[in-house]
Amino acid sequence: MACVFCEIVDGSRDALVVDETDRTLAFLDMRPVFHGHTLVVPRDHHETILDLPADVIGPVFAAVQRVTGAVIEAMGADGAFVAVNNRISQSVPHLHVHVVPRRTKDGLKGFFWLRHPYASDDEAAEVAARIRSALS
Amino acid sequence: MACVFCEIVDGSRDALVVDETDRTLAFLDMRPVFHGHTLVVPRDHHETILDLPADVIGPVFAAVQRVTGAVIEAMGADGAFVAVNNRISQSVPHLHVHVVPRRTKDGLKGFFWLRHPYASDDEAAEVAARIRSALS
Repeated sequence: MACVFCEIVDGSRDALVVDETDRTLAFLDMRPVFHGHTLVVPRDHHETILDLPADVIGPVFAAVQRVTGAVIEAMGADGAFVAVNNRISQSVPHLHVHVVPRRTKDGLKGFFWLRHPYASDDEAAEVAARIRSALS
Repeated sequence: MACVFCEIVDGSRDALVVDETDRTLAFLDMRPVFHGHTLVVPRDHHETILDLPADVIGPVFAAVQRVTGAVIEAMGADGAFVAVNNRISQSVPHLHVHVVPRRTKDGLKGFFWLRHPYASDDEAAEVAARIRSALS
């Protein structure tokens, strides 16, 4: 199946491109959370952050940094939300970093911070040990 | 004022550390969205993604990649949400990348995707032009 972001990269699908490098492309999300919402993608097809080759990580997030500054400036925003959905809630299986301009009292303030506390210090320590073990 | 993440980095404040490099530290968020929710921070104090020196961006997001794989594995998750709040919704003004394990039907599916469409193609093109102009 065709990948819509690969089609944007190869020029066979239209997009409002705002930034490009030899490794990355950035274009407007056409269903923006807020106007100016931009997606930064690697030119090569990689599905999630786990799949990015080591030498692509730096260029992708350097582009994200540059685009974030420009989106804030262009939209007169107070800050920005930068996010990657990996597999779950990921609509297109080609890594894309969302850059969303934010403003004080823009209504998104509490959207993320539903919390599920640990029942005890021991439970938290056990979770940390599991993650450390997965890293070793 | 003391920065709580600088205190974690210098060891004067406790945290459940799961990963460390010479440039980064990763530890559990103690008010997790889901258990295993981890924060990756640069050791040096930088407020937002805009403030990260060029030579720190790669190491920070390489750590994020490694931690994301470990969090998914350790928690038996199906994917992960990776996000940075810059200024707005940013509780601690020391850059931190959230790595949140995700599962199918974990209840967060629609949390992000409140949308504000462009009224016309012209309006979208005008926004893209503004961002391109901020980049040039």
